[in-house]
Amino acid sequence: MIDVGVLGATGAVGQRFVQLLEDHPWFNLQTLTASERSAGKPYGRVVNWRLDAPYPDNVSDIVVTPTTVESLKDCDLVFSALPPEVATSLETEIADAGIAVCSNARSHRMDSDVPLVIPEVNPDHLGLIDVQRDRGRDGFIVTNPNCSTIVFVLALAPLRAFEFHDAHVATMQAISGAGFAGIPAMEIYDNVVPYIGSEEEKMETETLKIMGKFDGSEVKPAPFRVSASCHRVPVIDGHTMAVWVDVKEPVAEVKKAYATFKPPFSNLPLQPAKTIELFDQPDRPQPRLDRNRGRGMTVSVGRVRDGLRFVALGHNTIRGAAGASVLNAELIHSRNYL
Amino acid sequence: MIDVGVLGATGAVGQRFVQLLEDHPWFNLQTLTASERSAGKPYGRVVNWRLDAPYPDNVSDIVVTPTTVESLKDCDLVFSALPPEVATSLETEIADAGIAVCSNARSHRMDSDVPLVIPEVNPDHLGLIDVQRDRGRDGFIVTNPNCSTIVFVLALAPLRAFEFHDAHVATMQAISGAGFAGIPAMEIYDNVVPYIGSEEEKMETETLKIMGKFDGSEVKPAPFRVSASCHRVPVIDGHTMAVWVDVKEPVAEVKKAYATFKPPFSNLPLQPAKTIELFDQPDRPQPRLDRNRGRGMTVSVGRVRDGLRFVALGHNTIRGAAGASVLNAELIHSRNYL
Amino acid sequence: MIDVGVLGATGAVGQRFVQLLEDHPWFNLQTLTASERSAGKPYGRVVNWRLDAPYPDNVSDIVVTPTTVESLKDCDLVFSALPPEVATSLETEIADAGIAVCSNARSHRMDSDVPLVIPEVNPDHLGLIDVQRDRGRDGFIVTNPNCSTIVFVLALAPLRAFEFHDAHVATMQAISGAGFAGIPAMEIYDNVVPYIGSEEEKMETETLKIMGKFDGSEVKPAPFRVSASCHRVPVIDGHTMAVWVDVKEPVAEVKKAYATFKPPFSNLPLQPAKTIELFDQPDRPQPRLDRNRGRGMTVSVGRVRDGLRFVALGHNTIRGAAGASVLNAELIHSRNYL
Amino acid sequence: MIDVGVLGATGAVGQRFVQLLEDHPWFNLQTLTASERSAGKPYGRVVNWRLDAPYPDNVSDIVVTPTTVESLKDCDLVFSALPPEVATSLETEIADAGIAVCSNARSHRMDSDVPLVIPEVNPDHLGLIDVQRDRGRDGFIVTNPNCSTIVFVLALAPLRAFEFHDAHVATMQAISGAGFAGIPAMEIYDNVVPYIGSEEEKMETETLKIMGKFDGSEVKPAPFRVSASCHRVPVIDGHTMAVWVDVKEPVAEVKKAYATFKPPFSNLPLQPAKTIELFDQPDRPQPRLDRNRGRGMTVSVGRVRDGLRFVALGHNTIRGAAGASVLNAELIHSRNYL
Repeated sequence: MIDVGVLGATGAVGQRFVQLLEDHPWFNLQTLTASERSAGKPYGRVVNWRLDAPYPDNVSDIVVTPTTVESLKDCDLVFSALPPEVATSLETEIADAGIAVCSNARSHRMDSDVPLVIPEVNPDHLGLIDVQRDRGRDGFIVTNPNCSTIVFVLALAPLRAFEFHDAHVATMQAISGAGFAGIPAMEIYDNVVPYIGSEEEKMETETLKIMGKFDGSEVKPAPFRVSASCHRVPVIDGHTMAVWVDVKEPVAEVKKAYATFKPPFSNLPLQPAKTIELFDQPDRPQPRLDRNRGRGMTVSVGRVRDGLRFVALGHNTIRGAAGASVLNAELIHSRNYL
Repeated sequence: MIDVGVLGATGAVGQRFVQLLEDHPWFNLQTLTASERSAGKPYGRVVNWRLDAPYPDNVSDIVVTPTTVESLKDCDLVFSALPPEVATSLETEIADAGIAVCSNARSHRMDSDVPLVIPEVNPDHLGLIDVQRDRGRDGFIVTNPNCSTIVFVLALAPLRAFEFHDAHVATMQAISGAGFAGIPAMEIYDNVVPYIGSEEEKMETETLKIMGKFDGSEVKPAPFRVSASCHRVPVIDGHTMAVWVDVKEPVAEVKKAYATFKPPFSNLPLQPAKTIELFDQPDRPQPRLDRNRGRGMTVSVGRVRDGLRFVALGHNTIRGAAGASVLNAELIHSRNYL
Repeated sequence: MIDVGVLGATGAVGQRFVQLLEDHPWFNLQTLTASERSAGKPYGRVVNWRLDAPYPDNVSDIVVTPTTVESLKDCDLVFSALPPEVATSLETEIADAGIAVCSNARSHRMDSDVPLVIPEVNPDHLGLIDVQRDRGRDGFIVTNPNCSTIVFVLALAPLRAFEFHDAHVATMQAISGAGFAGIPAMEIYDNVVPYIGSEEEKMETETLKIMGKFDGSEVKPAPFRVSASCHRVPVIDGHTMAVWVDVKEPVAEVKKAYATFKPPFSNLPLQPAKTIELFDQPDRPQPRLDRNRGRGMTVSVGRVRDGLRFVALGHNTIRGAAGASVLNAELIHSRNYL
Repeated sequence: MIDVGVLGATGAVGQRFVQLLEDHPWFNLQTLTASERSAGKPYGRVVNWRLDAPYPDNVSDIVVTPTTVESLKDCDLVFSALPPEVATSLETEIADAGIAVCSNARSHRMDSDVPLVIPEVNPDHLGLIDVQRDRGRDGFIVTNPNCSTIVFVLALAPLRAFEFHDAHVATMQAISGAGFAGIPAMEIYDNVVPYIGSEEEKMETETLKIMGKFDGSEVKPAPFRVSASCHRVPVIDGHTMAVWVDVKEPVAEVKKAYATFKPPFSNLPLQPAKTIELFDQPDRPQPRLDRNRGRGMTVSVGRVRDGLRFVALGHNTIRGAAGASVLNAELIHSRNYL
């Protein structure tokens, strides 16, 4: 068993980490960090559990520690749900101190020697861990993409067999993506907010790094262009997106690529039975009905039609955040990087 | 004063017609039709008023008549909020009987001699009224486009000065677009439904007719392509849409085109002070805050940025339905077609 | 194993029955009935699965039969999710034909020889089964109360130790209580509907029968009064209610009664670990966070304060409908009535 | 014309004040205060207008001043939308400085010489202004009740003709009552929160003061008891409440009292045509359909039935806050207290 911790364990993504790590077959959750105010108290007393998943009683008695390197001395690996302003320097310190960091923060995603990984898409990018080690670092940092990028790239992955040069994507994103208190009810109820700060830039740049080529020392960004338009809608969980890609293959070929898509591994505990669920019904996928497929780790694709157009959907705080980091950690462990 | 009637006056669009025609300076509302079940009773007793606008007391005592040609003998012009399966033959009969029909139904929109008009965009298409008359019809039919098409085309209109060949549009449409009982709460609450039957086809074909050239006898469709992806979101009123057009002009030029757009008339009672409201704030337009601009007749445009991308918004049952028909009728009257 | 069927298996409550009976340790689900239109086709093809719980694949191939007595010949017991207009005569026929009926329909709830049962409250009322048999019936009917009555009565049950004469209850009920298509989105979004047809009457009469005394031949209604005010709110699942009871005991005693409440059995598969979850936090229970406790079978109580006032909450389609019937069936089987 | 100002003009209630004072026939809005951060800038630049009512352009150029006594030297009367922690001392200072204060803050509502007034209910309590003046104060403070209290008391007022000793009320309150950013979307979407801090206490104590007797020097609280249970529901504007009062008169008499209720004045600009709208339809009032009656100043009552039970509804930020204060100011002015 690998001893693990969660940095920022009381927030929206932190709670998802705790939920996913309860009873994990490989990872032993033993450290939970939060702000100074909560440190020293049992997790069960300081957490304001807001998930509809039941609260995991077995972590109630873990005493929360402050979010510092010192708190992590018993951890082999930590999951970071930190805000970027804290993550930037602290994750560096932790990695330098010899601990593996799987981070959901955006701080290091675009660093040249940090892998930005979706296991089913670019597992070979983990090779950048060696680049980090070659420059003398004892631990390492591995990041997962932004929530909407993950859903988008997983929906693009089966199309890599085909040539394409350009993609348009309009997202309809859930409110949980902004954290528990991120969006006032008065702002989003009976409303659409057609703007999410720097989200479009993340989708446009992260996608190219993930789908880029790793040559053993660095990643060359993929040579196509993404144009994103990001919107918040009154949905609790689940990012839906309308996608256009200039693929010339017939729709039937594209559907076949989706239906037959398989990841290059089958032994990771959190990987879903189907990475991609392909729908033929005209009105699917829908966030309320489909976000929890594969325990929130399956990306759903539907309405594949000429254009080439389709609709993709994924759970933003599971597949798009905490689950992404945990799956990365499972991949890392299965490839003996720990 | 022109004597007018509303066909299908008790439904969602019918009620908007009644609201807009109350105290209209040119039109005298005197006939309201509904199903057999309601005929013979006062409107105030049969209507289940569901608008948040206050109920117009002055129509309460109008006795509802059945939806037949005979019921309309005192009308010079009628507004049709009929479902297409009724509208197809009945609107033809009414026009043949010498009455002007301004229809929100889709039945005759694509008929070659029926104008599909947005006053600010293609008022000259009213010339098709003469084509109808030339073949011996006493009255005529004029239609307005589908709700999402109207918002989309008004947002495209100022760009006609520039060359463009292709447009992508992803809509986030309000539930009122499906009528009062059209969408069960269980279907749309905490959800997005990524499909609206034949909506994409309407946006793709109607747009080209409206923006096409009328040569005195027929309309040549505009020579570009539209690719639409239509979605229902949990918003009561107001269709929001993310649009891409391959315009090469710089963003500043495009914004200028929006800011200076003016319709070719200024005397229509329902026309808003501004046809288009251009926003510079990054997070606008939003349906809850902006749908009622210009009493629901203004289309809002924002987030104009490279790509060329922007967000457009309009009130779907006012500018996108009843208000569209009333504005058409005002245009028709101002050009002496009655 | 007892062979069971579900009458009306494609609706909102019917789907909950199917979900709860998948892999049930005592009941073998083998018959699913629906309307003539669906009969003869596999369940997986005709059901429009609308639960957020994953669809149970093992029932996909069951061929749906028409809702008739003949369809049930292989069943020892059937669960009825029928509308009352069908249930009234059909459930009688089925019981007369020798089959046990556990019904969620309201048709027979107030029949003098039909038990209206909540296992934790009045299991002895099952004695009415013998009354049915004594008059020559081969099978029998057992009913569960209306969804809001169940939550209300479970919250009252621990107070039976105290004297009380009067109860007031204001409900805030979920939209799923009206079925998948029961409430148009335009009716409930951003709204409260302060009326649910005959719901108040059900709460006021059913409560007294359930809490009444069974003397071996009939049930004497409990001697207190209930005054209900029922409202629909924009919540998907979970009925919340504000309750006043004129109990004189101090709040601390009342809380103790809730905290120590135990049902008179502990071996029923669907019974939750805690029948009642008592909250001390000031802002609980809440439907989104608490409706799924005990797999939807736990009733949550909070804000117990002078007055005596408290708030109660339960899942309306699980504890309040399908789960109620299944738990009744488990009680019936455990007491050897089958 | 009376020169007036608004304290705290950029918040949710402050914006409603600005909306209601635009073009007021008696009051000339000339001072708008806000936090230091906004002071010195035009209102149009600092306000983030969040009402669905259109923004009043004529106040855009008013330069915002800091919230201090000095800023108010040109005002005869000010409206306070301040948070209580600021209001407590500042409102005292302003009144002492000779300015009339109409406050929506809770700070001074229960002060023995401060009138807590609803014009239609207890206009004679304005006599407390003389008590304030008798102790040497140049200006005075008049307060309006909490939003839910106002709706509740207006619905009780017509029943004063009858004897009653006890009232129960369960509220279903709108999210705007907590201010624009008061409630995170994740907290209230698909949810009910059965707790609003100190709201129940306000309803229980303020009601008795308002309905109490003023004997020329002080107010004796009314001799009945109120027991409240307050809940937040996913509604934007409009507080709905289920009320029980132990009135013995028949329902028909009670309805007559509602239907014939008239305020003791008819000349106040903001008073609605009907103080109370009585509904006979079984499913009304509803917040989305009825909150804007009488420009948000009418309280709607329906479902009057044995018990005695009924449902009441009012707009919480108009009748329940800013409109309440403006109507108080109109009453004050009409009775020559300025």
